Amino acid sequence: MDADTVLRDFDAGRARGLARAISWAESGRGADLVRHVYPRAGHALTIGLTGPPGVGKSTLSSGLVRKARSLGKTVGVISVDPSSPFSHGALLGDRIRLNEHFVDPDVFIRSMASRGHLGGVSGATADTILLMDAFGLEMILIETVGVGQSEIEIAELAQTTLVALQPGSGDSIQVLKAGIMEIADVFVVNKADHPMANMMRREIRGMMEMLDFKGWVPELVMTQALSGEGIDDLWRAIEAHRAYLNETGEIVSKRREAFTHQVRQLVLGRLQERLDDDLQARLSTDLDPYAAADALLQGWR
Amino acid sequence: MDADTVLRDFDAGRARGLARAISWAESGRGADLVRHVYPRAGHALTIGLTGPPGVGKSTLSSGLVRKARSLGKTVGVISVDPSSPFSHGALLGDRIRLNEHFVDPDVFIRSMASRGHLGGVSGATADTILLMDAFGLEMILIETVGVGQSEIEIAELAQTTLVALQPGSGDSIQVLKAGIMEIADVFVVNKADHPMANMMRREIRGMMEMLDFKGWVPELVMTQALSGEGIDDLWRAIEAHRAYLNETGEIVSKRREAFTHQVRQLVLGRLQERLDDDLQARLSTDLDPYAAADALLQGWR
Repeated sequence: MDADTVLRDFDAGRARGLARAISWAESGRGADLVRHVYPRAGHALTIGLTGPPGVGKSTLSSGLVRKARSLGKTVGVISVDPSSPFSHGALLGDRIRLNEHFVDPDVFIRSMASRGHLGGVSGATADTILLMDAFGLEMILIETVGVGQSEIEIAELAQTTLVALQPGSGDSIQVLKAGIMEIADVFVVNKADHPMANMMRREIRGMMEMLDFKGWVPELVMTQALSGEGIDDLWRAIEAHRAYLNETGEIVSKRREAFTHQVRQLVLGRLQERLDDDLQARLSTDLDPYAAADALLQGWR
Repeated sequence: MDADTVLRDFDAGRARGLARAISWAESGRGADLVRHVYPRAGHALTIGLTGPPGVGKSTLSSGLVRKARSLGKTVGVISVDPSSPFSHGALLGDRIRLNEHFVDPDVFIRSMASRGHLGGVSGATADTILLMDAFGLEMILIETVGVGQSEIEIAELAQTTLVALQPGSGDSIQVLKAGIMEIADVFVVNKADHPMANMMRREIRGMMEMLDFKGWVPELVMTQALSGEGIDDLWRAIEAHRAYLNETGEIVSKRREAFTHQVRQLVLGRLQERLDDDLQARLSTDLDPYAAADALLQGWR
């Protein structure tokens, strides 16, 4: 299929045009398409959802998609697979929970592997967000397992970041240590019927009290995604954050952040290609690694 | 402490000299030390050990350390934490299994986080291997959880790569799909008393038959690391691989590979710093991301 056909389908609002455009972006051939549709992007509500394996992210996603659909919004879902070779089985089980939406033409679901992409979530994911946005999808949900840098990156790409936590898992202590406190716009304690759920809520509240928030103070929502309980509360928290971003004008810096992140990954990718050529052509093995690095860097700018 | 003191301790074979040198490397101040001791490195046997969480890597490590010590070898162990904020609890449990060796002055154990380092395992880990090697440790074991790119990177840094698998986990199918077959010099089916252990052995053998190995054919070893069963077989497999590397001269390209990998990470780190300065100073947000990337790249060579 040629670029004109893809673009015609895309412009006509046909899902296969979007699907093809994303595939091209994934294989590194998306530049022209992205450039062409870029001026149309910038209207979608982008939500990142991260958390440990097993916390119920896909069930939460499914609940949010259902909510958005009930409000008549078109939806895109991007499920980013972690790059571990050892966990696909579990993730496949997760993915199935989204299948009630597979037949809805106004929900576009796409999963992608972070393996091979510099820095995990980025690269093709940023292109995919942009393409879905330009396609006219109103809400874009980016779901990723919190391994590697992905939970930090998702916060750079999304306007609102949800961090889902598991009661009784010890997650809350880790959250504070790992700098997750800084990226969460909304904490979601899922499986709220768990005996430790209230204790986790108190822990998170306690941690928040110790911190001095400038601007937005993260919301804390209790959900039981399987039964749908708390999804309305979660939606309200998302809307409240969006209202905050718009009223304060922070939405502009959020968009700029996502843009900067994408450009950074693009440039890094190109620099890596050049570097790999250089390593082939003129790596001196007579030096220690630091001297060899210095030698290679001479000639770069 | 100044560099002269660290170096004097290091040269005198005092563990605190090595410990301090590694800490400097971790905080990015290791260049001078590494350059100074580099000529002394290149003698250690480096072994990478990767596999899914829960497979028993630390118990395997502990068994290998015990074996090496019984042969009178000095040992370094590097445990690379995955960068997930959500799994430290589990890993700490793992780490404890190494504690029988903490009091042995000829075993130097160090754990480090991959978070923050470009590409996971690399960076400080490469420096640490080099420092331990130059310090005179004869066997260096690098242990990492198979998340992110770490399982691939470990194979670039280590001369012999062990991939540990869990019977009954579906791991064997993933191994083939994820390109792990290409990095494993030795497969270790741990928990050999598991009812599915023999089935997993057959699966891996079957997969190996389908592939056409040039040179080394991966060994497959069954272990019960907790009881120590199979550790002697594993040691023999490691020695066989080492003999193969030496006889064929492949050890030279293995060393070159590790060197190239380290230089690559060093250069990438410096390029990222420059790029971040550039992004601050002259990122145009009037363009689409690809055009903005092109604009930034002008002026880079």
